[in-house]
Amino acid sequence: MLDCTLRDGGLINEHKFDDKFVREVIKALNASGVDYIEVGYRASKTAFSTDKFGKCKFCDEDFLRKSIEGLELKSKLSTMCDVGRTDVDAIPDAKDSVVKLVRVACYTKDIDKAIDLVNKFHAKGYETTVNIMAISHALQPDLEEGLAQLAETPILAAYIVDSFGALFSEQVHFLVKLYAKYLKPKGKEVGAHFHNNQQLGFANTIEAIRKGANFLDSTLYGIGRAAGNCPTELLLSFLKNPKFNLEPVLDVIEKEFIPLRDKIEWGYNIPYMIAGVLNQHPKAAMALRAGKDKDKYVQFYRDSLAQEELS
Amino acid sequence: MLDCTLRDGGLINEHKFDDKFVREVIKALNASGVDYIEVGYRASKTAFSTDKFGKCKFCDEDFLRKSIEGLELKSKLSTMCDVGRTDVDAIPDAKDSVVKLVRVACYTKDIDKAIDLVNKFHAKGYETTVNIMAISHALQPDLEEGLAQLAETPILAAYIVDSFGALFSEQVHFLVKLYAKYLKPKGKEVGAHFHNNQQLGFANTIEAIRKGANFLDSTLYGIGRAAGNCPTELLLSFLKNPKFNLEPVLDVIEKEFIPLRDKIEWGYNIPYMIAGVLNQHPKAAMALRAGKDKDKYVQFYRDSLAQEELS
Repeated sequence: MLDCTLRDGGLINEHKFDDKFVREVIKALNASGVDYIEVGYRASKTAFSTDKFGKCKFCDEDFLRKSIEGLELKSKLSTMCDVGRTDVDAIPDAKDSVVKLVRVACYTKDIDKAIDLVNKFHAKGYETTVNIMAISHALQPDLEEGLAQLAETPILAAYIVDSFGALFSEQVHFLVKLYAKYLKPKGKEVGAHFHNNQQLGFANTIEAIRKGANFLDSTLYGIGRAAGNCPTELLLSFLKNPKFNLEPVLDVIEKEFIPLRDKIEWGYNIPYMIAGVLNQHPKAAMALRAGKDKDKYVQFYRDSLAQEELS
Repeated sequence: MLDCTLRDGGLINEHKFDDKFVREVIKALNASGVDYIEVGYRASKTAFSTDKFGKCKFCDEDFLRKSIEGLELKSKLSTMCDVGRTDVDAIPDAKDSVVKLVRVACYTKDIDKAIDLVNKFHAKGYETTVNIMAISHALQPDLEEGLAQLAETPILAAYIVDSFGALFSEQVHFLVKLYAKYLKPKGKEVGAHFHNNQQLGFANTIEAIRKGANFLDSTLYGIGRAAGNCPTELLLSFLKNPKFNLEPVLDVIEKEFIPLRDKIEWGYNIPYMIAGVLNQHPKAAMALRAGKDKDKYVQFYRDSLAQEELS
């Protein structure tokens, strides 16, 4: 179980979480027993401005050490890197870092580049995974070729990332079985990362588990870009493993996420649902929600259908 | 497909929807192509005060006729009756009513009484179903005995009603197959009504469909008591039947439900999630949400666990 609250949730607010919030999230998740806590990206400072983005976008070693100071950390820390937006040389070796896992995010077409990054991070001593985004747009031969290549790398797991919240249970079953066919014989796991555009984030994670997925993403109160993610509080309750503890999760939601939700928006609403139903990127829906027409659903639906015909 | 917005949604506000709202909902649902529109209860005026409850609690014939005046109605109208809270003699025969379907709601222990009501409504010329509530608390032998009896009645369908939003997909599969074993050989269908406490209302409805359920409940924007229901807009999109039309549904949500949501609360939140996870009635969570401690989740979780130990 990997909670990616600080990483995926940060996509809503340019990763501008304040230091206290970051620390409280890590503290609660560590107490809850999740296996990994993803604290953000380690993005290149050449590609992204430190004026525009918050600390969780870069995850400097100093910042991370301060965030966990005095905590008895049982969960491992993870960061994400995007293909093309990472300066590997600027990132310390694993032995000099509190981070243990690096997750490389890419589209199907960039799996070669992702593998190159995986090899570099592996050489630096990190655990690695590859997260294949926009999976509902992937062509099966391309995906199968990529999975066959990934099976030969040092990754722990490759993820199904339903970026558009478009998948239903039967498609989840199909994809988990396809991933498993290539990965399991080589001792690698299938990962699951589902968005909530159709209120299926948690349900699809359960379906992935039923078919053998073993690396599971979630976020506190479902925070994440647009419709958000599978909620950590639901997944933790479902798994019923005695090592997990729900109370610290409820506590941090009560104290940190309810006030935050008044300031930034995430979760199910009609424009994100339309994007999910039409298997489209949520960017148009996010732009709508930021403007004065945020509840003009019929017009947005017509525009989205027109977009579909163009593409 | 049966939309029960006005009936289940009315449980939040004592069915005090204004006349324009009722008419707009019926108009939109009729245009969307849903098979049935449930307009409320036909509750006994001896059991419930007309001062305290709105028109959709009683569904007087005059009120219904006025609500559909001038509409070319393709959807059939439905009302619900609770065992013990219904005055059958006060309800007109089907030939004198715009209502076509009566759904009788009961607990497993009251199936005999439900069958008595079914027979009376059938004699009056109505289509009938039985909706077995709190199914996650039903003992299997009791349920099987009830289903065997229901198979011999004139009902169109018997419903799985997950009142506490506690079920997962494998339990849904089990229940649909159990219902089908008794009902299908007698030409009766399995119905599905799922609540959203664990964000599984829509997902469980899909799982029920996959196993053969054919009477499907939903509500506009998921409105309903506590965490609410499977959303009509999602189910309609999923079914992909060309007879359905999403646009009128989006239009009525935009115009009527967004303003309403500012006045009354429904949908996923932590207290309703806790009730679902613990397979408890949402009444304690509803009481919490109505008071000043509405976001005191940890205390509510501890109280709910204590309640569990008592019961």
